[in-house]
Amino acid sequence: MKLLEERIRQDGRILGKDILKVDTFLNHQIDPELMQKIGDEFATIFRDVAIDKILTVESSGIEPAVMTGLALHVPVVFARKNKSLTLPDGVWTADVYSFTKQTINHIMIDQRFLTAGERVLIIDDFLANGQAVAGLVAIVTQAHAEIVGAGIVIEKAFQQGRQLLDEAGIRVESLARIAAFENGQITFMA
Amino acid sequence: MKLLEERIRQDGRILGKDILKVDTFLNHQIDPELMQKIGDEFATIFRDVAIDKILTVESSGIEPAVMTGLALHVPVVFARKNKSLTLPDGVWTADVYSFTKQTINHIMIDQRFLTAGERVLIIDDFLANGQAVAGLVAIVTQAHAEIVGAGIVIEKAFQQGRQLLDEAGIRVESLARIAAFENGQITFMA
Repeated sequence: MKLLEERIRQDGRILGKDILKVDTFLNHQIDPELMQKIGDEFATIFRDVAIDKILTVESSGIEPAVMTGLALHVPVVFARKNKSLTLPDGVWTADVYSFTKQTINHIMIDQRFLTAGERVLIIDDFLANGQAVAGLVAIVTQAHAEIVGAGIVIEKAFQQGRQLLDEAGIRVESLARIAAFENGQITFMA
Repeated sequence: MKLLEERIRQDGRILGKDILKVDTFLNHQIDPELMQKIGDEFATIFRDVAIDKILTVESSGIEPAVMTGLALHVPVVFARKNKSLTLPDGVWTADVYSFTKQTINHIMIDQRFLTAGERVLIIDDFLANGQAVAGLVAIVTQAHAEIVGAGIVIEKAFQQGRQLLDEAGIRVESLARIAAFENGQITFMA
């Protein structure tokens, strides 16, 4: 998605070796028009797929997921993060390790909102090491629902997330695929 | 907002004395079309007000805020919750006490995204005791920005939040105002 790549090039800040901050338009300050275009793009990409529900994780997955849900006319469910050791009853849950923050979050979804046989599109803001998406996949599996694909806003293609999802046989569609950070510059996959 | 009141009556679950769960369409599962209508409604209500930025708190404030930003063509910033005692540099911050969870969250906004003189519309999913909105007000005050109003999706008018904001001279517009829960029934303000 050309517009997104341009925005990342313009506003993205590279921290350290492999962290990209896009907090001016995606995960702290939000550009609503760009989010709508992102939602429309995912809707176009997945237009031939039957989708019952969109699944994401709070917080930054919510905006692209809701805009995709709006375009596809399907409900969205976001998994909640929970750091406490006790979990409520009646939830599907998975552990998600954050390499960036070096913490483990439990993510959970009320079982009422994900049921057997539902066709689920996963949407998330980032794919890096794939831990968040893998957590969502684990939850969908527990619910005996079906994953029809994963739509990612920004993929860091040099990390292992894509491979993880490829090996699980999941169709992954990323709107911007970053090949490398080199000398403070962002290179996208051709 | 008639449509919203009907949805609350249909799907809302009352827990205990004063908790309303609307997790089927607002804060766990999300109805994107309803969110868009909510955003359009806020845009109509505040159409004569000059607004530079919309401010909310993660996670459930994000969807109505982004839809309002889309309708009004202004950027959205969501405050992040932070339970840790150490805060990063360069943030505006406030403490928010949750009566429901009996916990204190720090909420914070990067100072780059809220600057002196900006006209800020606050959007949030709930107004109950007013702690979250009061935290946002404190942050806006720290930044020497200006609050032009607060748009609330669901107000529990029998709790003290509204009074708190009235006393602070803030214009509050709620799309659904709940007068009381009586015998498991929801009564809206006339």
